[in-house]
Amino acid sequence: MKNIVVKNISRAPLDTCAALAEQGVATVHEAMGRDKLMQPHMRPVFPGSMIAGPAVTVLAAPGDNWMLHVAIEQCRPGDVLVVGVMTENTDGMIGDLIATALKARGVQGVVIDAGCRDVRTLTQMNFPVWSRAISARGTVKATLGQVNMPVVCAGVLVNPGDVVVADDDGIVVVPRKDAGSVLALARERSAKEEKARARYAAGEISLDSSNLRPALAAAGLVYVESSDEL
Amino acid sequence: MKNIVVKNISRAPLDTCAALAEQGVATVHEAMGRDKLMQPHMRPVFPGSMIAGPAVTVLAAPGDNWMLHVAIEQCRPGDVLVVGVMTENTDGMIGDLIATALKARGVQGVVIDAGCRDVRTLTQMNFPVWSRAISARGTVKATLGQVNMPVVCAGVLVNPGDVVVADDDGIVVVPRKDAGSVLALARERSAKEEKARARYAAGEISLDSSNLRPALAAAGLVYVESSDEL
Amino acid sequence: MKNIVVKNISRAPLDTCAALAEQGVATVHEAMGRDKLMQPHMRPVFPGSMIAGPAVTVLAAPGDNWMLHVAIEQCRPGDVLVVGVMTENTDGMIGDLIATALKARGVQGVVIDAGCRDVRTLTQMNFPVWSRAISARGTVKATLGQVNMPVVCAGVLVNPGDVVVADDDGIVVVPRKDAGSVLALARERSAKEEKARARYAAGEISLDSSNLRPALAAAGLVYVESSDEL
Amino acid sequence: MKNIVVKNISRAPLDTCAALAEQGVATVHEAMGRDKLMQPHMRPVFPGSMIAGPAVTVLAAPGDNWMLHVAIEQCRPGDVLVVGVMTENTDGMIGDLIATALKARGVQGVVIDAGCRDVRTLTQMNFPVWSRAISARGTVKATLGQVNMPVVCAGVLVNPGDVVVADDDGIVVVPRKDAGSVLALARERSAKEEKARARYAAGEISLDSSNLRPALAAAGLVYVESSDEL
Amino acid sequence: MKNIVVKNISRAPLDTCAALAEQGVATVHEAMGRDKLMQPHMRPVFPGSMIAGPAVTVLAAPGDNWMLHVAIEQCRPGDVLVVGVMTENTDGMIGDLIATALKARGVQGVVIDAGCRDVRTLTQMNFPVWSRAISARGTVKATLGQVNMPVVCAGVLVNPGDVVVADDDGIVVVPRKDAGSVLALARERSAKEEKARARYAAGEISLDSSNLRPALAAAGLVYVESSDEL
Amino acid sequence: MKNIVVKNISRAPLDTCAALAEQGVATVHEAMGRDKLMQPHMRPVFPGSMIAGPAVTVLAAPGDNWMLHVAIEQCRPGDVLVVGVMTENTDGMIGDLIATALKARGVQGVVIDAGCRDVRTLTQMNFPVWSRAISARGTVKATLGQVNMPVVCAGVLVNPGDVVVADDDGIVVVPRKDAGSVLALARERSAKEEKARARYAAGEISLDSSNLRPALAAAGLVYVESSDEL
Repeated sequence: MKNIVVKNISRAPLDTCAALAEQGVATVHEAMGRDKLMQPHMRPVFPGSMIAGPAVTVLAAPGDNWMLHVAIEQCRPGDVLVVGVMTENTDGMIGDLIATALKARGVQGVVIDAGCRDVRTLTQMNFPVWSRAISARGTVKATLGQVNMPVVCAGVLVNPGDVVVADDDGIVVVPRKDAGSVLALARERSAKEEKARARYAAGEISLDSSNLRPALAAAGLVYVESSDEL
Repeated sequence: MKNIVVKNISRAPLDTCAALAEQGVATVHEAMGRDKLMQPHMRPVFPGSMIAGPAVTVLAAPGDNWMLHVAIEQCRPGDVLVVGVMTENTDGMIGDLIATALKARGVQGVVIDAGCRDVRTLTQMNFPVWSRAISARGTVKATLGQVNMPVVCAGVLVNPGDVVVADDDGIVVVPRKDAGSVLALARERSAKEEKARARYAAGEISLDSSNLRPALAAAGLVYVESSDEL
Repeated sequence: MKNIVVKNISRAPLDTCAALAEQGVATVHEAMGRDKLMQPHMRPVFPGSMIAGPAVTVLAAPGDNWMLHVAIEQCRPGDVLVVGVMTENTDGMIGDLIATALKARGVQGVVIDAGCRDVRTLTQMNFPVWSRAISARGTVKATLGQVNMPVVCAGVLVNPGDVVVADDDGIVVVPRKDAGSVLALARERSAKEEKARARYAAGEISLDSSNLRPALAAAGLVYVESSDEL
Repeated sequence: MKNIVVKNISRAPLDTCAALAEQGVATVHEAMGRDKLMQPHMRPVFPGSMIAGPAVTVLAAPGDNWMLHVAIEQCRPGDVLVVGVMTENTDGMIGDLIATALKARGVQGVVIDAGCRDVRTLTQMNFPVWSRAISARGTVKATLGQVNMPVVCAGVLVNPGDVVVADDDGIVVVPRKDAGSVLALARERSAKEEKARARYAAGEISLDSSNLRPALAAAGLVYVESSDEL
Repeated sequence: MKNIVVKNISRAPLDTCAALAEQGVATVHEAMGRDKLMQPHMRPVFPGSMIAGPAVTVLAAPGDNWMLHVAIEQCRPGDVLVVGVMTENTDGMIGDLIATALKARGVQGVVIDAGCRDVRTLTQMNFPVWSRAISARGTVKATLGQVNMPVVCAGVLVNPGDVVVADDDGIVVVPRKDAGSVLALARERSAKEEKARARYAAGEISLDSSNLRPALAAAGLVYVESSDEL
Repeated sequence: MKNIVVKNISRAPLDTCAALAEQGVATVHEAMGRDKLMQPHMRPVFPGSMIAGPAVTVLAAPGDNWMLHVAIEQCRPGDVLVVGVMTENTDGMIGDLIATALKARGVQGVVIDAGCRDVRTLTQMNFPVWSRAISARGTVKATLGQVNMPVVCAGVLVNPGDVVVADDDGIVVVPRKDAGSVLALARERSAKEEKARARYAAGEISLDSSNLRPALAAAGLVYVESSDEL
């Protein structure tokens, strides 16, 4: 592993990111063909945020936040910091100080497959973090890693500049070049879902509206009037 | 395993269910002799709900919500949908669309030993879900299962029509035929606990009010004035 | 293991405890040289509490809250009850009844490496509990343990009278005799962090303000303009 | 929960059990339509055993092996003891003493959703145990439970007298009345698999022999010559 | 996600793979700068294998082994099949039938972030599998995925043709183009370690032979004669 | 936390240790009143070892084996190295090199609440290690810790010089001063268990030989002839 910082990366456009944030993680994930969703151990430290922005990626050693300090300088307004760790770790690599520095640079939030601390202050700052754990455990600055190289975070490969979409449902990653087409598909899906929602609210059920009965019957589903028939 | 949907089940009466909801999970669980409590990995996706209703049961394949669509049709006002999965899985089998359909039929909520998504919308709808995980992961419609057959959900056997009681403490299942007697015992316990609470609030302690000292002494508990005596 | 209750323990002074609570867990943990932080599976059952007080320690058997009842009597105003369990367990050892008794004696809160129940009522009472799990599972009164003996709770040795500091970030334990010196160091650190926060908010970055660049370069960190150079 | 021991149960015939043991867990599980397989945290304490026998069921409290002592008396030659626990627990509820008593009564082995100890001696005795954990943690005799009542063990409902089939792949439960028909289906499957194995060993592949290509194409699978085409 | 099979991939040369297998996972991982090691939940189903070969990659749905059947055809002698799954899953996606087919094609072994079954037969066949779990749970053939596309398996990105090195210590992935240089570095390290081993066996200690004392002193390590001095 | 190495510690006598090893972990744990057993995630990397020796204790940072190198020098023949880690970690902190150095000094084995690597070589060396995980993950030498200070390892407080007893059942810690008395109690228990084993092998059951029936009846256990009575 080479210890490298890449200074210039291509970023997905911020307006596309903002539009993806509005669509939400579940819809974007579906629009991508159910791909690139981070594992569900990643949770927001406080609820209610919906963000999307280009990834500045970090690979850090367990219990070591040196590379987060390095990464701050590489961030631009609208970015989302994404931190993968070399081995499973829950230490509090990010807290209110780094968050303050990131916020000052216009960063929207952080996705980190490790721990987060100062959650009370982060909530007051309204600076959203998605993490594997909440832990006050302090970290050292001893081992190098990488910034703006491809990184696996919570089971998903993230390339620098990819769109990271995060809300209360989790985090999904949209490859930079697919951002526009995924947005179009997400909007299409939203429109379709809105209609389905209206139909369902009116009492229609999916077996009918989606015509699921023939396939269920073909697969062998049997309806009985009561358990006495079994 | 036969792929069966049972259309008619006997349900616990809704007024008994409502009364059990008021008692709460902890009290009902105690009233049942500490039985049939689901495992604590089951958590509400938002806090504050207290429901109880007859179970419509579902057995689903991992990553597959086909049988949830089938189950909607079998639900009646006041029901609680209970979903067991064939193998451990966190995928987002239930979201706002199915919730809308269920709510339209008067279903009170869902207990699912898998993932839930669209939690922001579910919160806005005030449609409570207890789940193993929050995950936007989309699901397929490919493998059959069962509806209204006995199912193991989060370690507990649930028969269709049993009362499912759920609140912030978790979920307990009351066999349909025991609903009335358990309610009576729960009320008895509540009354007793209310008195204990008043006594404790006044400074009495349980060693005295519950006469625990003789048993402690008989079991061999030793009091020393300070650690210097050890 | 001897089944012992120690009646008189030396407690850290309450005013020092209160001052440590204000500093918060992350800062106190750092001030202690990053020591004695409980494992991050310990979470508050509701957010927003910040407490610190002398530990009354309990060792309990799994699924058995007998020793919690014994411990109540040993508590004084300002104490924090700390419960270790002989083997991993999530049962609801503490609920609103014990909480009421503890509150009546002036106890500030509970830290328990097992389950907690009645979380709705505990929230209404504003009686904070940090636990491994939320579970309504009832417990028995059959097996003895210890009160006010050294106990390992969530990976940390706690001696009776040590200061237990708990907030939304977790729990840290300050040895009784170190309480004053740790408080001084924590205040020092807070002051320093406040300045850093101001600088970061103004856009300064830690690579400069903490002079991290030379060490990074010495360790071999390489900056490249773009990934084309790799 | 009532504390009951049922003395007389109907058992699956031992010769059918023996024949099911020969078929192995994976085949029997498939023959049952992929049903009633225990969760994979259940592992043999030593490898190489293949057993099947009627279940004598136990429900025990965490950290308490009292009901195992009660259950011994209810066992007959060829039985398999199945132990569910009221809440997740890893304590060593079974060791060489209980194993000696069970072996003296002709019991084939134990399936326990808790811990096992004395594994060296159990291996020397060739008395197989499948458990959630290996732990020397001692247990008490304080809380009642049930013997020969339906129990959920590792996610599966086991009725007394059901056939418990266990080998290195895990544990599957065959309802007593289905034992004969499941055996027939298992043998059918084995014969079919033997042929498939011969064909595969000869280089044939399942896409052809099972005619999977049309369904794959219909589902939309695309073959490309190289990644340059993407 | 596109459902694609790439038919032609560039593979690392088999002689380099064989030489990497001899070096072992720990040494190769170190030679790579401590990179690309799979998570430690991946374990061999039987001990003693040491393999390395070019990766044929698979992405499969949970509980679905359809794409494994598709992948067999793409395998060549010396390959290692690597299976990532869309979401955490322990189902027995691979058993003796698929293993027979793979062995017939000269495949060395399988690395799968899901379950494995028929472990007794696999052991007899001496066909090594590294998996997340052992589970007899049967799988369906309903959902497409990918073959020979980049896949994340157990936290590591694997590109088709990369060298997968696996032994009792786990699994490490060497990018195809780095195979030669990593082998050279691994050999260098082995030679160095052999010397260290001889020195250590002779009683030398690393504080001296690696000259660690000055750095320890500089970092502030304090030696005291006894704990009385503290 | 102070970074300290204590050079001289009082050790339990080696002959007592050897006699405790013969008794085995389960018996010693019972003789201690069921105290000080490490958590069951600690497993031997190969089966069959039974050791006991005075603890040389280490506290290490996650992913950092610097203090293990420091500890080697403090070891004497017969010692057991016990390593606690500041936060949950599975990295391979110990491998064949450190094992060679420890073996050269007469150390009997290692108990480490982190990862172990080179397990094939360790098995060939017959140098036993009990660990949380097997992982080839390499570690750094950057952060100080402690040697021969009290440490919490896998949930148990270990003081330097305490007897660490380890076998296939796990690990138990005997306080140095109690070694003799615990040995006497363990031998007493062994003698008693041998008699019980003989009685059980002859078909006697514990309900009779331990006179458990009256207590079971008093607690309310009910025997019914068949489930028809329920």
